[in-house]
Amino acid sequence: MTGQGLGPLTVWAPDGLPEVGGGDDLVALLAEVLGDVRDGDVVVITSKIVSKAEGRVVAARDREQAITDETVRVVATREHPGGVTRIVENRLGLVMAAAGVDASNTPEGTILLLPLDPDATARAVRAGLRDRLGVTVGVLITDTAGRPWRQGVTDLAIGAAGLTVLDDLRGGHDSHGRVLTATLTAVGDEIAAAAELVKGKSAGRPVAVVRGLAHLLTDGDGPGARSLVRLGEQDMFAQGTAEAYARGWKDAASGERP
Amino acid sequence: MTGQGLGPLTVWAPDGLPEVGGGDDLVALLAEVLGDVRDGDVVVITSKIVSKAEGRVVAARDREQAITDETVRVVATREHPGGVTRIVENRLGLVMAAAGVDASNTPEGTILLLPLDPDATARAVRAGLRDRLGVTVGVLITDTAGRPWRQGVTDLAIGAAGLTVLDDLRGGHDSHGRVLTATLTAVGDEIAAAAELVKGKSAGRPVAVVRGLAHLLTDGDGPGARSLVRLGEQDMFAQGTAEAYARGWKDAASGERP
Repeated sequence: MTGQGLGPLTVWAPDGLPEVGGGDDLVALLAEVLGDVRDGDVVVITSKIVSKAEGRVVAARDREQAITDETVRVVATREHPGGVTRIVENRLGLVMAAAGVDASNTPEGTILLLPLDPDATARAVRAGLRDRLGVTVGVLITDTAGRPWRQGVTDLAIGAAGLTVLDDLRGGHDSHGRVLTATLTAVGDEIAAAAELVKGKSAGRPVAVVRGLAHLLTDGDGPGARSLVRLGEQDMFAQGTAEAYARGWKDAASGERP
Repeated sequence: MTGQGLGPLTVWAPDGLPEVGGGDDLVALLAEVLGDVRDGDVVVITSKIVSKAEGRVVAARDREQAITDETVRVVATREHPGGVTRIVENRLGLVMAAAGVDASNTPEGTILLLPLDPDATARAVRAGLRDRLGVTVGVLITDTAGRPWRQGVTDLAIGAAGLTVLDDLRGGHDSHGRVLTATLTAVGDEIAAAAELVKGKSAGRPVAVVRGLAHLLTDGDGPGARSLVRLGEQDMFAQGTAEAYARGWKDAASGERP
């Protein structure tokens, strides 16, 4: 149990980060705008600038192939007037429309793939900021996704270092003195959401700092955002309803046992 | 388009709220601890204290019947050593394990149902705080839920007043000057998540204040958190994979067309 603070939590999005391009030294650029950062802060980075620094840019005409290449497994598909949207599990274990391949905030005619290994990048940024600024911070890399049953998108943690992303209250007590048995809070995703509120989508501020969560920092790099993925045995929504129904129907028609 | 601020966002959880009981005047209790609140702040209230004030307490032995009574539709079920967990759509349009019926932070032998109408309660709290404190704030009522494909729980907005819960960036421009066509951000859920980071689960601070989002406040009561629900036609996960598969299989076996 790491416990939870009572605030104040402060979140802001520093100004001055230039447009990031392929081959740029992301740590150097971040260090320029993060002069105010202190030990215990969490630096939250929109995945888009990580992708750009990694040169993960593809011609827009190759979009469908790019989605296929990023896909581990198709979860559901939906036809719409412009084509078919594929909701898939991608190689990062994220279930996202179009595998997370993105066409906003990229140069005309291009699309952007998700970073190669956002947990590794988070670790590198954490080490780099310690070297350059002498601070020990948590680092989160975030992306935006839709959710079943809810309107609108929210930001999620897709890379993390030096930070607890699942806060385990098991072993703590509730206000009536009973042991809390099964509350794991996805604080990584909650921090991503809090940061999105100040970064926004159109404001050109892809980095935020969250101060007040030092109790969630880990001594080492910690488990990474990959630990927020829940697929396989525990996944009750491994396939869309229409797809699962069709599979059951087909299996029955061909004499398979359920 | 309401635009998005760049911070700073400040979030804190006021001290001093007493244990809430059935019939308590929630606005009066809140006004006592929210003396620092200003115009433009968002007051975020854990649904549990709303339920307690409404007397939504049921004997723990009636838990299964209570879940049935709160259920509109079963989405999926999962057997485990202690019984069967039902993931259902409840009468508020929320898809939650056990319909959102909760046994933590309640007196021994009792369980708590979700508030009757959290959007209505949010409106009443907003009006009440204006009367008592002379401030115009946004009000959010939150609850905790799991998510497909992700470990851990996060807080969601289940009641809202005076606040944009879906921020519509359509019509805005990205950093390359292109019109953003389809980005609706679930800021209501993101504010709920930010507030959870300071309220915590075991700390006995069921209320938080978020300062710095005045651009998201609405002149009137606004659309409420019900507008964050996406079910029906747009819902690709209306039924769990195993349940949908079994239904397809059964329909085929009984000669139904898919």
